[in-house]
Amino acid sequence: LSTGKARAAGRAAPIGVFDSGVGGLSVLAALRALLPDEDYVYLGDTARLPYGTKSAQSVVRYSLQCAAALAARDIRCLVVACNTASACSLPALRERHPHLPVIGVIEPGAQAAVAASSSQRIAVIGTEGTIQGGAYQAAIARLQPGAKVRALACSLFVALAEEGWTEGEIPEAIARRYLGQLFGDARRAPDTLVLGCTHFPALLGPIRAVLPAATQIVDSAGTTAAAVRAQLTPSKAGAPGRLSLLATDGAARFARVGSRFLGETLSAERVELVDLHQSA
Amino acid sequence: LSTGKARAAGRAAPIGVFDSGVGGLSVLAALRALLPDEDYVYLGDTARLPYGTKSAQSVVRYSLQCAAALAARDIRCLVVACNTASACSLPALRERHPHLPVIGVIEPGAQAAVAASSSQRIAVIGTEGTIQGGAYQAAIARLQPGAKVRALACSLFVALAEEGWTEGEIPEAIARRYLGQLFGDARRAPDTLVLGCTHFPALLGPIRAVLPAATQIVDSAGTTAAAVRAQLTPSKAGAPGRLSLLATDGAARFARVGSRFLGETLSAERVELVDLHQSA
Repeated sequence: LSTGKARAAGRAAPIGVFDSGVGGLSVLAALRALLPDEDYVYLGDTARLPYGTKSAQSVVRYSLQCAAALAARDIRCLVVACNTASACSLPALRERHPHLPVIGVIEPGAQAAVAASSSQRIAVIGTEGTIQGGAYQAAIARLQPGAKVRALACSLFVALAEEGWTEGEIPEAIARRYLGQLFGDARRAPDTLVLGCTHFPALLGPIRAVLPAATQIVDSAGTTAAAVRAQLTPSKAGAPGRLSLLATDGAARFARVGSRFLGETLSAERVELVDLHQSA
Repeated sequence: LSTGKARAAGRAAPIGVFDSGVGGLSVLAALRALLPDEDYVYLGDTARLPYGTKSAQSVVRYSLQCAAALAARDIRCLVVACNTASACSLPALRERHPHLPVIGVIEPGAQAAVAASSSQRIAVIGTEGTIQGGAYQAAIARLQPGAKVRALACSLFVALAEEGWTEGEIPEAIARRYLGQLFGDARRAPDTLVLGCTHFPALLGPIRAVLPAATQIVDSAGTTAAAVRAQLTPSKAGAPGRLSLLATDGAARFARVGSRFLGETLSAERVELVDLHQSA
């Protein structure tokens, strides 16, 4: 498909990852933990974030533009780290890039939730767009038709994670208000909670603090990284992989807020700005 | 400039208002309260919200596209209801539309703050983009060079207002955490607070609850409406004006969340979707 560029011996083409912004860096962090030798190209469509409140039609268009920009960098696998894009764009991405493995975050999260739950009462939280789109609910129902799924949009969690307010009374009070709606009735409470937004692992502390102790928490970043590993022949580089960071706007903010999600301090100089209108 | 369409006797061309989303409907509500006979066209660029985290270059481009779409509807005045766009786009808008009065929300808010403050210690809160851009700080300094301005981004207020969590412990705790940074030292506390984001008037209750009782609160929606009234010859319609609502994405969400800011229940059918790429 691509002539590719000359690569160092044993070094495979990079894994491409895109998200509407910086939240997908939590998926990238999980990928690097599992597959540290791989090269990665990460694209955050910060000019158009958030996808969660936009229509499916717009999100599909944006996703195709993100994928085109990454495909132009000769990737060998495309990870859709955005829940909203995973929910509505995978068929269009696979049609446009038939030879590229395309892995979203929904299906791995749904599989892990069904595997983790004994009662098959599963709760899913995400952005408004993810929850209203119903993709997690549908994926869980396909895997386990008898499952009882309750889903809730937790919009303030995104703002909390971006603000870095991830500990203490305020995030706990917000978590209690949201999650009390799902777990308030002990007799019918879910035994498994899916974090269906890449921002939410940052709030694991307060979420854990307000849930019944036995609740299983499924973090779709980790489950997605495992799905990528299962599908790829690993690079034989034997050395830490390289990371390229692209954004469509605001390199300084990308670096500052993104550092929280990647778990590594980024400088704005490392972030290359790209214009997706030219690459689609 | 425009041939215009035939209008009912005494009915002037509409006032155009744009914002990145629904928050500017609080400015529209203030305008309708002061100038109820006018016709209005409101455009929310919901496909690209929020502007507050985007670069000035992108915001200027989006603003010009919004203004072009409204100018095509034969408006007689352009109100920039978005703080971020007001901070960086007014010169470009005035250059592109030299015969159209263009009124932003920054200057009226700054004037009202300087008039309200006796100590000339003034606090400004807004989105990250507005505060980092420094437009309120600069506008106040121009009007009152000795003023001591402290400014703080309060990103969570936007999410709270959109979620409708505008009363009770959670918004008060968040307001206390943010505003404590500005008002914590009683000897140097500001006597005036500018709400430099169209979302923030929705949180007036919790903001008021955590401030010293004598603090003057300047709501830029009301001050902007007054500036528009001062500049225009009122319509002589003698009947309530008409309101057209445009959005670039998500009519259902626009109507649902926008109802909170307009103070009137909107149905999605009232919201016309427009594509700004075609009108710029």
